[in-house]
Amino acid sequence: MTEAPKASTSRVYRKDIVVRFTDCDPAGIVFYPRYFEMFNDIVESWLREEIHFSLNEIVTRRGWGLPTVHLEVDFAAPSVFGDSLSAALSVRSMGTSSIGLDISLHSSDAVARVGGKVVLVLVNRQPLHAIPIPDEVRARMALFQET
Amino acid sequence: MTEAPKASTSRVYRKDIVVRFTDCDPAGIVFYPRYFEMFNDIVESWLREEIHFSLNEIVTRRGWGLPTVHLEVDFAAPSVFGDSLSAALSVRSMGTSSIGLDISLHSSDAVARVGGKVVLVLVNRQPLHAIPIPDEVRARMALFQET
Amino acid sequence: MTEAPKASTSRVYRKDIVVRFTDCDPAGIVFYPRYFEMFNDIVESWLREEIHFSLNEIVTRRGWGLPTVHLEVDFAAPSVFGDSLSAALSVRSMGTSSIGLDISLHSSDAVARVGGKVVLVLVNRQPLHAIPIPDEVRARMALFQET
Amino acid sequence: MTEAPKASTSRVYRKDIVVRFTDCDPAGIVFYPRYFEMFNDIVESWLREEIHFSLNEIVTRRGWGLPTVHLEVDFAAPSVFGDSLSAALSVRSMGTSSIGLDISLHSSDAVARVGGKVVLVLVNRQPLHAIPIPDEVRARMALFQET
Repeated sequence: MTEAPKASTSRVYRKDIVVRFTDCDPAGIVFYPRYFEMFNDIVESWLREEIHFSLNEIVTRRGWGLPTVHLEVDFAAPSVFGDSLSAALSVRSMGTSSIGLDISLHSSDAVARVGGKVVLVLVNRQPLHAIPIPDEVRARMALFQET
Repeated sequence: MTEAPKASTSRVYRKDIVVRFTDCDPAGIVFYPRYFEMFNDIVESWLREEIHFSLNEIVTRRGWGLPTVHLEVDFAAPSVFGDSLSAALSVRSMGTSSIGLDISLHSSDAVARVGGKVVLVLVNRQPLHAIPIPDEVRARMALFQET
Repeated sequence: MTEAPKASTSRVYRKDIVVRFTDCDPAGIVFYPRYFEMFNDIVESWLREEIHFSLNEIVTRRGWGLPTVHLEVDFAAPSVFGDSLSAALSVRSMGTSSIGLDISLHSSDAVARVGGKVVLVLVNRQPLHAIPIPDEVRARMALFQET
Repeated sequence: MTEAPKASTSRVYRKDIVVRFTDCDPAGIVFYPRYFEMFNDIVESWLREEIHFSLNEIVTRRGWGLPTVHLEVDFAAPSVFGDSLSAALSVRSMGTSSIGLDISLHSSDAVARVGGKVVLVLVNRQPLHAIPIPDEVRARMALFQET
């Protein structure tokens, strides 16, 4: 009779990231556009490993795309070369074609570095228009939905 | 006694950008982290050309920094390789140490591509703490403040 | 009957480059992979402005490609953030499908920074195979051939 | 009297690399400057994991640098988004301050993709001059020297 076990099944996708020389600027900290390459890598890994709907499948094989259409990010503290970061991704919301993700990066001692809200949209590229997220993809994404 | 001629002195910094091969992804459109390299280039040019307080002066000579601490961006439409974009930058707000900028990119026929709100903070790097924007820098930035 | 005035028509393509914040690493100098983004930009501009055979035409419209297949580069001296560099491009050799380019970067006081030999090949992408450089393209490239 | 056991101790540093979306261009293949970010990552990992002389130690803590001064690379075949590559690094030569490395990338079925010869030099940055490779570093690097 109690509310469903949804919370217990809500998952967070995690990934470890080491700040590379490539990521850093003359001030010795991560150049902020590189954080978005990290964001893209996190989404890419999550789609491939957990959603079984890889960016490669989306972009190369189907001729679709998954562009980022909105982004809100707080950079709470700088990261320096050599830092070990923990990334966490969860699904904030899903529309017919859009996916709202929360992506955060923390230091190894759990201090927030970057917190982002990202909205992606599944599109057909030629001609460009939104397309519905396939049902089986939606079902797998729902496992990562915040409760 | 009438309200000041401030509006007439409010300026917008403009810069033309051509979408390069380097900027584009396998879907043939600008990979969104590259937009932030463009944002950084726009801020860099503005600081050097108009504010006479270059990133080089800030980072290399003074040992300070101007990290981006907050970002909100809408990607209204994709840009493809070879597109000519017009960038516009204006100052939305200034705090003691923080600078809120509006940065937008439009296509050559004035269609919005990217619209961003960026907050930068002037910092000392060792140890890391915010420092007040120097008065003469503030005065030059104020010329670009939205009214 | 005398040997041709070829030398007098041999041209060098030149382009000015400012070292951006984006290009530099925690040691404060250009991160060497960024030099190859510069190389690519130089080739891209040359093809568009002088050869009238743009990378966009090649890659997007014709479905061809112009991959770099060989590279030899000397990094004679480091470049720092804010440096003004002069790039020079000339054609060392042309085969049926391949183009050998010399690309160099000098400081504003003419000190060598980077000297590179690059070989590009014109290819069809699906399936991948070399294709002959079109005659009118070859003729325009020949104007930049070293004598 | 028999020839020394040096060959048996000669090691190759190996690392797996997955071609990411970030690495690829509008032709769907790795944009060649990204290979040099991979090269840098390989060197960075090798220095940290095997040589115990990390780039972070070199650049950040000691104020030294390890710039690439020469590069020769063959790009034998293109790599596409999603490819799994095997990188191999060995030491071709060592001078007082310079290190010659062979770095290669192969596909998962052992076909050569990229083969590079890289020369790095250990330098002091302020003022810029070559410095001898420390003995214990040299000893560990020698384990990876080709015989």
